Amino acid sequence: MMNGQRSGIDVVLVHHPVVNKTGETIGSAVTNLDIHDIARAAKTFGVDNYYIVTPYEDQQLLVNEIIEHWKTGHGASYNPARGEALELITVADSLEAVIALARKERGVAPRVYVTSAREQENSLSYIEARKRISSDKPILLLFGTAHGLAPQVMDMADHILPPVGADTGYNHLSVRSAVSIILDRLLGNREEQ
Amino acid sequence: MMNGQRSGIDVVLVHHPVVNKTGETIGSAVTNLDIHDIARAAKTFGVDNYYIVTPYEDQQLLVNEIIEHWKTGHGASYNPARGEALELITVADSLEAVIALARKERGVAPRVYVTSAREQENSLSYIEARKRISSDKPILLLFGTAHGLAPQVMDMADHILPPVGADTGYNHLSVRSAVSIILDRLLGNREEQ
Repeated sequence: MMNGQRSGIDVVLVHHPVVNKTGETIGSAVTNLDIHDIARAAKTFGVDNYYIVTPYEDQQLLVNEIIEHWKTGHGASYNPARGEALELITVADSLEAVIALARKERGVAPRVYVTSAREQENSLSYIEARKRISSDKPILLLFGTAHGLAPQVMDMADHILPPVGADTGYNHLSVRSAVSIILDRLLGNREEQ
Repeated sequence: MMNGQRSGIDVVLVHHPVVNKTGETIGSAVTNLDIHDIARAAKTFGVDNYYIVTPYEDQQLLVNEIIEHWKTGHGASYNPARGEALELITVADSLEAVIALARKERGVAPRVYVTSAREQENSLSYIEARKRISSDKPILLLFGTAHGLAPQVMDMADHILPPVGADTGYNHLSVRSAVSIILDRLLGNREEQ
């Protein structure tokens, strides 16, 4: 993808509804590094929007204050590249609100791709997903915090992407690492030889 | 790679010597999330050792205290998987010390692979690197903090890996994201179709 073009891909980081380690549906807290690292990865891979979903007003305020610091505050002169990445962020109350925003921006309903650290039935391979992206877009690529997206979110999916890793029997990547790897698999530069 | 096997690959996160934004050689501060996220990615992709290089004693102490908390402190009962990842970490004074430790553990001198966010001459493609890994191991895979590895470290390299990203004109990944993506490119599970 060339500089300046729109990819048709948005990343969505979900803090509610997600599950905790016993499988209950919860809302998780926003993490400062999730804001920064995922915005930087999104910008690097040409993602159009990075939606952060949280229903909690104090958390929404926190995210917006951080964005403001880097876009127009002291951060903007210290590190202008950071502001460029954080500009991709939109905070939303709910996943339904994100879908409505995406539909409004794109003119059509987005396809919903979900990710999971656990094997799921009927998942699409990354090679297949990489091929489908241009015909499927606009796409919302959903990531869950805590122990992953709640079942009702998984049920909304048009497509499920498989876990990334190396079949070592250990798979506890941070959501920041998982987003980076999945964006690379879907949108990263690839060599010919 | 199967559960329990040794991959022959070590990750090295260098805090000194690295460069700042004006190209001067500096030592950077250890970041808590670099410890956690990179250990989790290393364990997920079957890396054998995660070396953290810093000459500063207070920083070495900090890293060792964090490891201890998750291996035997309150963290160990709260989240045992985290301790498993942090067990990969060894703190070292210098890159020379890491090379000596690796040689001692492996019985032969390791090959040094360096990474960079900037294009370098004579870099090896990831496809080529993925093929070479088994015959080249043991391998130390070096990552720089701050604005990247100092020139004297780049000069030590047996091989240079190219920048990862998507040719969007923006490439400001966190080192945590870069490590995750590069481990996936070199060691990640790949689908056939």
